[in-house]
Amino acid sequence: MQAPPPEHCPGVESEQAGQVSACAGCPNQSICSDPNKKLEDPGKALVTAALKDVKHKLLILSGKGGVGKSTVTTLLTRYLARSCPDSNFGVLDIDICGPSQPRLMGALGENVHQSGSGWSPVGIDDNVCLMSIGFLLGSVDDAIIWRGPKKNGMIRQFLSEVDWGNLDLLLLDTPPGTSDEHLSVVSYLKDDNAPDSVRAIIVTTPQEVALLDVRKEINFCKKQRIPIVGVIENMSSFRCGHCGHSSEIFPAKTGGAAAMCAEMEVPLLGSLPLDPVIAKACDAGEDITSIKNATTEALEGICSKIMSNFS
Amino acid sequence: MQAPPPEHCPGVESEQAGQVSACAGCPNQSICSDPNKKLEDPGKALVTAALKDVKHKLLILSGKGGVGKSTVTTLLTRYLARSCPDSNFGVLDIDICGPSQPRLMGALGENVHQSGSGWSPVGIDDNVCLMSIGFLLGSVDDAIIWRGPKKNGMIRQFLSEVDWGNLDLLLLDTPPGTSDEHLSVVSYLKDDNAPDSVRAIIVTTPQEVALLDVRKEINFCKKQRIPIVGVIENMSSFRCGHCGHSSEIFPAKTGGAAAMCAEMEVPLLGSLPLDPVIAKACDAGEDITSIKNATTEALEGICSKIMSNFS
Repeated sequence: MQAPPPEHCPGVESEQAGQVSACAGCPNQSICSDPNKKLEDPGKALVTAALKDVKHKLLILSGKGGVGKSTVTTLLTRYLARSCPDSNFGVLDIDICGPSQPRLMGALGENVHQSGSGWSPVGIDDNVCLMSIGFLLGSVDDAIIWRGPKKNGMIRQFLSEVDWGNLDLLLLDTPPGTSDEHLSVVSYLKDDNAPDSVRAIIVTTPQEVALLDVRKEINFCKKQRIPIVGVIENMSSFRCGHCGHSSEIFPAKTGGAAAMCAEMEVPLLGSLPLDPVIAKACDAGEDITSIKNATTEALEGICSKIMSNFS
Repeated sequence: MQAPPPEHCPGVESEQAGQVSACAGCPNQSICSDPNKKLEDPGKALVTAALKDVKHKLLILSGKGGVGKSTVTTLLTRYLARSCPDSNFGVLDIDICGPSQPRLMGALGENVHQSGSGWSPVGIDDNVCLMSIGFLLGSVDDAIIWRGPKKNGMIRQFLSEVDWGNLDLLLLDTPPGTSDEHLSVVSYLKDDNAPDSVRAIIVTTPQEVALLDVRKEINFCKKQRIPIVGVIENMSSFRCGHCGHSSEIFPAKTGGAAAMCAEMEVPLLGSLPLDPVIAKACDAGEDITSIKNATTEALEGICSKIMSNFS
């Protein structure tokens, strides 16, 4: 794995690319300083080559943190992998400062091995593999205190130097917001000749303060021309384990996700209740496909809608 | 308000500072290119001067998104302002990609005015004012799609070019993670001669996947030598509105925040239940200090513990 770009990398699109002293020793210096170079990150060609056998890419996005992007990524992957046993699925956790996938997938403490064809992602199931910066930390409590360029370098490495092999679908779990990680991953994955090569699912909760950020994320996708498969409303209600009464935890003052989807013209894939049984299983990294309840039923419905987009 | 730093700013600590073509026209060019300059962001002196009448600064942090940093910031500010009517409080929302404070404080759609002494923050109450990028957007749905350096420039402007006036306490609501925003705000506010000049409160929920990220944030504070006032556990339980039964929504497999605080040697300030009454009031931007229930009682206890740190 090559070193991340230097701390003061002027940016490959800068006129100073390859010419400032920070560029000395950088493996991309000769490409960057070529006056005839195309103004494109040289990493993009590497990413395209590395992912040539990955059929579809799906970004799991949300402007708001804590709405369940990572949990939804895990749940979808588990269900898709069980429903399509002959397909191969990969998960890439690009939440560099807060990687959750190793815990949610029950792979905490696993190690990533290097082979001739790159870093091998961690096998979760026969047809599921996972890569996360969580596997590269000395201790799970280590804080990754990185500014944008270092995070972007890590994402490029995850896309270009991991031996993903043949995948039918690569799911990318993202951090909240619309910043470095999102811009980088979109610029690496987007192929203007194949507008469907990367698509997005948006996760939200029903309350207005979450929808506010999610509207921004939908506008981000529209600006970047990423097709939106649909919106998943998470934590839509809470079923009391004592009396069975279903309560709205986050009251949907303005019609919740359904109204927002209608207004912004994106499909609503379904709603998932807040389910302590599922939360506990996810915290423990257990496979939830053996649990049968209202939540997993809703999840199955969402998964079949998603699959119809990729057939 | 001066322009944000140029897109390809080499960084003030770079050897190329002030010398690359991107520096042309930047108001800091002469400072940056001075060979005798101290290797420090010239913005820091501006920030220090602008905040000379701000007694204390408090960062509201959490490695995890969606745990309630913004809501806790609003609730604390409302309570502190009511308990200490002779003190002045300011709130700065540095969540550039997902600003929530304008909605939570009931100030959506307000405008920021410019005077001779800088931008005037929006008055929320007699002794509370607020600044957020949310006030500068054309539409609330606009996505801020900025990489790190532009976000950092905005934060510097919020700290150095807003007319904060005399404040007893400035609360800073942050985005999730440990990246650009956090490094910038700490580097601008930290005063090595006054180690208590900026302190932090950490917000978490009880489940293990949140505590994982929060441990990273505590280590970030320790590395940056920011004293931690304490940890607030949010959404600790949910009280069913139908039968009154209290359920754990996010099961605390490993002892929750209490066990983590003991292990990491930071004080636990208290726990707040998930309360639909409070959530609804916050979504509507209402002042919650007139509500009397178990949540607001817990909040009062937490506020008095915080105040004892600032007396």
